[in-house]
Amino acid sequence: MFSSFDERTMQRAIELAALGRHTTPPNPSVGCIVTQGERIVGEGWHRKWGEPHAEPLALQAAGAETKGATVYVTLEPHSYQGRTPPCTDALIGAGVRRVVIGVLDANPKVSGDGVRQLQAAGIEVQVGLLADAARELNLGFEKRMITGRPRLIVKSAISLDGRIALANGQSKWITGTAARADVQRLRSRTSAVMTGIETVLADDPQLNVRDPSIDMLGRQPLRVVLDSKLRMPATAAMLKLTGETLIFSGAPLSDVSASVAGKAGSRPANAASVAHELRQAGAEIVAAELDADGRIDLDFVLAELGRRMCNDVLVEAGPTLVGRILQLGLADEIIAYVAPVLLGPDARAMADLPALQTLEQAQRYTMHSVDRVGDDVRLTLRRRPEAP
Amino acid sequence: MFSSFDERTMQRAIELAALGRHTTPPNPSVGCIVTQGERIVGEGWHRKWGEPHAEPLALQAAGAETKGATVYVTLEPHSYQGRTPPCTDALIGAGVRRVVIGVLDANPKVSGDGVRQLQAAGIEVQVGLLADAARELNLGFEKRMITGRPRLIVKSAISLDGRIALANGQSKWITGTAARADVQRLRSRTSAVMTGIETVLADDPQLNVRDPSIDMLGRQPLRVVLDSKLRMPATAAMLKLTGETLIFSGAPLSDVSASVAGKAGSRPANAASVAHELRQAGAEIVAAELDADGRIDLDFVLAELGRRMCNDVLVEAGPTLVGRILQLGLADEIIAYVAPVLLGPDARAMADLPALQTLEQAQRYTMHSVDRVGDDVRLTLRRRPEAP
Repeated sequence: MFSSFDERTMQRAIELAALGRHTTPPNPSVGCIVTQGERIVGEGWHRKWGEPHAEPLALQAAGAETKGATVYVTLEPHSYQGRTPPCTDALIGAGVRRVVIGVLDANPKVSGDGVRQLQAAGIEVQVGLLADAARELNLGFEKRMITGRPRLIVKSAISLDGRIALANGQSKWITGTAARADVQRLRSRTSAVMTGIETVLADDPQLNVRDPSIDMLGRQPLRVVLDSKLRMPATAAMLKLTGETLIFSGAPLSDVSASVAGKAGSRPANAASVAHELRQAGAEIVAAELDADGRIDLDFVLAELGRRMCNDVLVEAGPTLVGRILQLGLADEIIAYVAPVLLGPDARAMADLPALQTLEQAQRYTMHSVDRVGDDVRLTLRRRPEAP
Repeated sequence: MFSSFDERTMQRAIELAALGRHTTPPNPSVGCIVTQGERIVGEGWHRKWGEPHAEPLALQAAGAETKGATVYVTLEPHSYQGRTPPCTDALIGAGVRRVVIGVLDANPKVSGDGVRQLQAAGIEVQVGLLADAARELNLGFEKRMITGRPRLIVKSAISLDGRIALANGQSKWITGTAARADVQRLRSRTSAVMTGIETVLADDPQLNVRDPSIDMLGRQPLRVVLDSKLRMPATAAMLKLTGETLIFSGAPLSDVSASVAGKAGSRPANAASVAHELRQAGAEIVAAELDADGRIDLDFVLAELGRRMCNDVLVEAGPTLVGRILQLGLADEIIAYVAPVLLGPDARAMADLPALQTLEQAQRYTMHSVDRVGDDVRLTLRRRPEAP
């Protein structure tokens, strides 16, 4: 069904798409190539939300050579009027003969409709060339389109014996410089980086992309802090950086003083002024629902981040938050950078989890990929397909 | 200096040598190839202690074609009369013209003397072709030749968070069938498999090579149990298997009752009869020195195993023994099979180690190799070259 030229060209389209992975969120990353016979006449890739899509860029690059062309596009062209006109219209208008698609768009506004519109215009459409690799570009976007929730990636830097820090909190550094540079690339592709207030108070992390070799085009992942008692200091390092910080707090902020007398008994009386200071420092504060244990409800958080069009959310947090996420089965992926060092049982575990009675109770993941990063190894675990 | 034919031929000699890795201990594994021009006229590899070495086998296979031949041998030919005549004599007698050697023999009886003898006989000798790979065949033998102690390999099957069992002891199974099969291959290449009495009492392990696809030629790694208070049951599963079991006990066995009144106060009064029963069941018991904490002295154990010509000793033990070994810096290699599962902080750690105050105090290893094994990953850590 597909020729080796088809495959090579789609592979190149995937590589083009990947060039935009750190700047396209909340949009998906898409690459497109226009060919005449086995000759490439135009290429394009989506760069940034609000800017042109891959298809019109590739058609434009092809100029007068679009008539009768074959077009390779990693993701099904969108078929509705959004911030940009439908790409299906552009392809039809350009007179192309055949469109080869990597994967269908999970966006319910498209999801097959793009294919049908092209076919209705007499264009030959083939779907599924290098589908796995094309899909891999936009797993977070796909999940959000289907569920309204972002894809959750838990990242930990651990010793061989699964420790993220010494008992005294020291964690700089367990993994090497190459692994830490890799975390910059990982962050750059996410919509948000999430942590817990304990980590903020202990480490004052920046959670930003600061590798000068990554051109974010001004974008920064949203920084998200779960902070049920609003203990975030207005002096936190992340508030001084470009990009936005979102704090999920545990009380209705319009009525902070009321909540002091209520469930959040340990809250200082000046919570309202804390919130004010934090807002002055640039933070946005969201009044979050609490779960039965008085912690920020994670379902509420994910729904809110989905509403804010977050595709991939990277969790860089301590054992409490990571443990809650894993226990609730919310992690789509776990990325563990494992260093060749042992820290012993007194050091801090990567995830607080309840004791198990049998190994069958343990949540198993699949070992998606294994990569050496400097003198460390990066293990990428994914939720098992059969898991709920 | 070396042609591509030289390299290919040495590579093949290394592959031949590796065929004997599970049966040659305590001897090193060696492969040898005899060539005329670029034509292989004879091959041989050492199979088993007491049987012919690789060089005479390869020369024999070459028959009348040894005169003027080039010989590739992974390890320097031995130059002294041992259980077999010197291989140097065989090469000189066969009239070969050139000998290409992977690595020098660390055995102080050889170590360059093999080369000198060949050169004295007018044979051209080159050393160091694919030296790293050739050396890799016999790391344990090399260490024993240099230090008199075996190479210590700590093997653990762990969860991503570094746990070897649930709090209740359940550990069957954390890793998958492929990893467990790999442990059989790992064991097959070792001289001994060592564990602690706690593991024997908890799991009653067999510690043998039982994969029918591995022909051990009747050999089994020596099973070693560290058992300071001689709690080993005579009914232990390993005592029913072919192969030998060696128990390091904490008291002079000729004077067991005396030691009851002495340091081993909790020893049952019938220790002498326990020892008798264990010997009846086929175990050998060695009276070991104890360290300051009343545990079997590991230095004593390694010296004794070296004396018994153990090259590689595989440690398959619980956190206490593994922790002691790591803390003393005795592990030459750590092989961790990591499964994509988390078991939580209540589960058992792979190694009991003292709390650290700074990360600089942690013992770092190098990440020697990373291999996927089924749905698990095998991480091979090695002692850093600069470590004492």
